Amino acid sequence: MEIKVLKDILGANEQLAAKNRELLDSKKVFAVNVMASPGAGKTSVVLQTIKALKGKVRIGVIEGDIASSIDAETVAKEGVPVVQINTGGECHLEAIQIQNALNNLPLADIDLLLIENVGNLVCPAEFSLGEHLKILIASVPEGDDKPYKYPLMFNTVDALVLNKIDLLPYVKFNVDTFTKTVKNINTKVEIFKMSCTTGEGVQAWAKWLTAKMKLK
Amino acid sequence: MEIKVLKDILGANEQLAAKNRELLDSKKVFAVNVMASPGAGKTSVVLQTIKALKGKVRIGVIEGDIASSIDAETVAKEGVPVVQINTGGECHLEAIQIQNALNNLPLADIDLLLIENVGNLVCPAEFSLGEHLKILIASVPEGDDKPYKYPLMFNTVDALVLNKIDLLPYVKFNVDTFTKTVKNINTKVEIFKMSCTTGEGVQAWAKWLTAKMKLK
Repeated sequence: MEIKVLKDILGANEQLAAKNRELLDSKKVFAVNVMASPGAGKTSVVLQTIKALKGKVRIGVIEGDIASSIDAETVAKEGVPVVQINTGGECHLEAIQIQNALNNLPLADIDLLLIENVGNLVCPAEFSLGEHLKILIASVPEGDDKPYKYPLMFNTVDALVLNKIDLLPYVKFNVDTFTKTVKNINTKVEIFKMSCTTGEGVQAWAKWLTAKMKLK
Repeated sequence: MEIKVLKDILGANEQLAAKNRELLDSKKVFAVNVMASPGAGKTSVVLQTIKALKGKVRIGVIEGDIASSIDAETVAKEGVPVVQINTGGECHLEAIQIQNALNNLPLADIDLLLIENVGNLVCPAEFSLGEHLKILIASVPEGDDKPYKYPLMFNTVDALVLNKIDLLPYVKFNVDTFTKTVKNINTKVEIFKMSCTTGEGVQAWAKWLTAKMKLK
């Protein structure tokens, strides 16, 4: 019974995600679903990406949170169009929420749409939004054992940003072990090491992302 | 339709949680539901608690993860009885899983049962397990804005351990702001500052926990 209901939800979600994708494609908008644990640095990576691509790529942002509009307010200061979705308790974004958000964004003026999902390493991995890329922000203080514990999330993403590498001297985290574990779960994933505090690694990430947009 | 199913699940879960509580009380076991983001340090706090109370309180552990038994293996090295629950995709523990785990633990030899939930700041807050206390491990590198984004979790817990305070010199985190925000959401919550790396704050936490057990 429970599984049947879940299947219905996912079925409906997939259909709505396909519609979102059609709309995004027709407007030439490249959409990226940004997922992570709470506090791994999703908003910081979004901000760094906006700064790195300023004047080159027109960016729009959808912020997903259970409550509050803190992230949307932070992003709006960068002068890009942003919509905040409050899920009101749901632990992930779904395609219908993105459909509503797309209707409230100036898609004709956006090349790259960054969708910041709810902070959660589990359920967001199960729900397509119509995005072209799924990316995961992992962070050094979370520890290098996370791929074992959240295999679907690590398996499902096209790229992984390992954020907060400036904290490597202060915590136990083996980058080689982490990288090998991730590659065992997901052979095709691209891994970028980054610090949003120092700016290290931002350019390499922005370059790869821009190349992905052109390949589409 | 969807909401009706959720209500049914929670109803069934509440009934099973009440049964777990009866069993725990009849065996004089005090149970603590430990919740947190991925990588906030749940297992480290469990380990520190075991070490702090060694020879004083007989501890048992239930480890909840979507996949893997890394944490159970780590805890077992401390010589305490431990059961690993793999949820197989579910983003939280439910009472029925605890019922099964309790049947596999030597309850007569346990005074304090630490239940480590799945790393997630959302859904675990909605599901009672039959525990006597709910605690949240927040960590400094996650940032001081988390209470705004996950209000149910911060509202629902009896105590909050702010872990990784050894990282305060290296990241932006205002302890006063964080404490005030948490207290606004949850006036009764006890807050403990801790570093599982340096051991700072562990004794105060262990003392409070032992007092709570005696008050029961």
